[in-house]
Amino acid sequence: MATSPQSVIDDLARALPADALVTDPASTDAYRWDRALDPNAGVPLAVVRPETTTQVQDAVRIAAHHAVPIVPRGAGSGLSGGSSAVEGAIIISLDRMRRIEVDAATRMATVQPGAFNAEVKQAAAAHGLWYPPDPSSFEFCSIGGNVATNAGGLCCVKYGVTTDYVLGMTVVLADGRAVTLGGPRLKDVAGLSLAKLFVGSEGTLGVITEVVLRLVPAQRPPATVVATFPTLTGATDAVLAITRTMRPSMLEFMDRPTINAVEDETRMGLDREAAAMLIVQSDEPTEIAREDVAQIEQICEQLGATECYTTDDPDESEAFVVARRMAVPAVEKKGTLLLEDVGVPLPRLGDLVAGIEQISARREVPIAVVAHAGDGNTHPLLVFDPTDLAQKARAEAAYGEVMDLAISLGGTITGEHGIGRLKQPWLGAYLGDDVLELNLRIKNALDPQNILNPGAVFGDVTGA
Amino acid sequence: MATSPQSVIDDLARALPADALVTDPASTDAYRWDRALDPNAGVPLAVVRPETTTQVQDAVRIAAHHAVPIVPRGAGSGLSGGSSAVEGAIIISLDRMRRIEVDAATRMATVQPGAFNAEVKQAAAAHGLWYPPDPSSFEFCSIGGNVATNAGGLCCVKYGVTTDYVLGMTVVLADGRAVTLGGPRLKDVAGLSLAKLFVGSEGTLGVITEVVLRLVPAQRPPATVVATFPTLTGATDAVLAITRTMRPSMLEFMDRPTINAVEDETRMGLDREAAAMLIVQSDEPTEIAREDVAQIEQICEQLGATECYTTDDPDESEAFVVARRMAVPAVEKKGTLLLEDVGVPLPRLGDLVAGIEQISARREVPIAVVAHAGDGNTHPLLVFDPTDLAQKARAEAAYGEVMDLAISLGGTITGEHGIGRLKQPWLGAYLGDDVLELNLRIKNALDPQNILNPGAVFGDVTGA
Repeated sequence: MATSPQSVIDDLARALPADALVTDPASTDAYRWDRALDPNAGVPLAVVRPETTTQVQDAVRIAAHHAVPIVPRGAGSGLSGGSSAVEGAIIISLDRMRRIEVDAATRMATVQPGAFNAEVKQAAAAHGLWYPPDPSSFEFCSIGGNVATNAGGLCCVKYGVTTDYVLGMTVVLADGRAVTLGGPRLKDVAGLSLAKLFVGSEGTLGVITEVVLRLVPAQRPPATVVATFPTLTGATDAVLAITRTMRPSMLEFMDRPTINAVEDETRMGLDREAAAMLIVQSDEPTEIAREDVAQIEQICEQLGATECYTTDDPDESEAFVVARRMAVPAVEKKGTLLLEDVGVPLPRLGDLVAGIEQISARREVPIAVVAHAGDGNTHPLLVFDPTDLAQKARAEAAYGEVMDLAISLGGTITGEHGIGRLKQPWLGAYLGDDVLELNLRIKNALDPQNILNPGAVFGDVTGA
Repeated sequence: MATSPQSVIDDLARALPADALVTDPASTDAYRWDRALDPNAGVPLAVVRPETTTQVQDAVRIAAHHAVPIVPRGAGSGLSGGSSAVEGAIIISLDRMRRIEVDAATRMATVQPGAFNAEVKQAAAAHGLWYPPDPSSFEFCSIGGNVATNAGGLCCVKYGVTTDYVLGMTVVLADGRAVTLGGPRLKDVAGLSLAKLFVGSEGTLGVITEVVLRLVPAQRPPATVVATFPTLTGATDAVLAITRTMRPSMLEFMDRPTINAVEDETRMGLDREAAAMLIVQSDEPTEIAREDVAQIEQICEQLGATECYTTDDPDESEAFVVARRMAVPAVEKKGTLLLEDVGVPLPRLGDLVAGIEQISARREVPIAVVAHAGDGNTHPLLVFDPTDLAQKARAEAAYGEVMDLAISLGGTITGEHGIGRLKQPWLGAYLGDDVLELNLRIKNALDPQNILNPGAVFGDVTGA
């Protein structure tokens, strides 16, 4: 459909309050990228900053009428380029929709998509409740983005991922209709599980404008074990041995490059010679947590750990977790990053880590591995000097090889960040033709014009 | 497409081993009904009893070629008529596909759909593990049926429903292709959440031939409180007060008609005069469970409970749970049942129970209410004398009124049994036109010929 950019902007200006529409390039630029810093991000036509579902509907209706692409966007903390701007698109930024309502009696929260994960946690905590999913970016990522990517985090090994806490949502469809899927009911099997379908759909099926989240009672203060290993194998074997004997509430892994990068930043006295370090927590009641800690220590020592440090002091525990969360920014100081998110079935974790080490050596690209090891989800961080074009090319080759390796081990190319645009070329190889085609059938059924976040997840597809 | 029944049977006979094909009416009759005993069940053309995914594919391909309907079927324990036979259909009974493989290291089970829920629990228990979802029918319902209906149960108040434990599946699509969705990975966000979409789809999108289930460590032996109340309000207020202060692992409700029906069967000494009884469990570690029990008692007494009996003896606890599970068969002895499955947000539970009492009085139809009260999911059992046609008509009217009441209270028309065929006429009123249309778009995208369990969930729809 032929349409002039100005006529789209005029329609938006007529439909929306002045403060909900941003069109000058100096201001729209801030909405072009997420943390993946996609060099191919386009220049948007306009940014819409709605305050209500109705305003989202208005913007989507105008986009649908003119067949203009829409890119929904939360806090822009995505790591896969899922909210990179598309040339000529309307960006719908949910950053002004941040209301949070907690119902303590039913342990549920009704949350607008722009609220930060940390704000939801805080609102829940005010009622003695807890929203578990905890991406490392929880202080600056939005719930809308979390739901759109089915985000994970550190506690998922025990508490599951975002979808496990989503009971319902309001979503604006490609034609501008708003629908409510699921709701504040713990059990509801009437019709297809559409709310669950929208979780993880990365803005390709609709724009989420409200979610109903399940909360749980506050977490008990955890006991923490930090163990350092002289070999990678010792650490990955310990991960398996721990997860098969207890239920840790956190089981994180850092390899030597990560430990050193974090130590450079924190000077907290981490063992720079260790091949790997595990941070393990148990949030069971005191007596059981004590038994857990004793068992973790025993397992780690049997598998060659050179040091096991344990604490149940909350501040000290938190210091180690902060160190772990700092891993990505700390490694980022060493160069430009290509950030992976591959996961494997737990018994293949050792093979994955060893294989990544080989890729790093062969491609002469440093790879720091940090992992939510307890659920087999790793973040290999490929570091390159952006001025060294040969190394940059080798890093890009290694980036693909790590995903190929994960697939060959029965794993996934993305455990919690999403496909976005960066991992899109590998989706077909991972899913296979039949499952990819099934994905596309649903995408086409719900967005026949392909205006919702085109290029993300599915690449360039033509509408039905 | 014009096709002769015999040519379909001939194709099936050529493709399948002799023991996988049943065509004589005397034998196929056993596959016409589930526990809903739908009087409109059709006469199937044939029953296929596959042993492998490939045999399911063969049958589906033949059905697709001839445009003959397929009705997938597990153990036939469904309560909504979701596996009632369709006239001239091929029934695919998964009752011979019962393999269960437990991987203790990763705490997952790979299960064929015909395995009973109890068998999965048992296989998990052999490794010190637990598969939580526990429909009252767990001893004779299949996992395939559980996944197809997103089945619930008694422990869901703390442990969630079937979808929370489904990590992946193999499913045969409407054209006979088999796809694997998700898998043995705790985190995987590559592509749409299709496995979650198939959970609860009641055989309308594909035939599930294998599922990967998440297991958790064995449940601790629970402590149990049984409290009897002189008023319904006291009991429903206690439900709210308990769920807001702790996390019970079971919170069941029986009203007076249910108590009396169960007492008629068990003679275990239940209080026949009580308006309602709660069975509450805590499976926290001993010390905490003790505190929970003390709090439950205190809450119940404050809200007027006439008796609170507590026990941490496992056999005694189990006796009360067995009594609760016996509720449906016990009430069934009083007449023919219309079995509801309505759920409401917890704060409306009292209104729902009171409203049902009014419907019962107005329609002069006894209604016994048993409920998974902790998650607001109730099973009003409408009892009528099938020879009394006037009462039968009043019961049918009341059946609809109970669902209308649940909708008006922000609730659902089915919490865990599924829409099947019995509740189909109410789906549109519950979902609304837009969500229903969204459901149908997905149904049409995945099953354009509408051969998969036609009539179930969506009623008579025409393929795209």
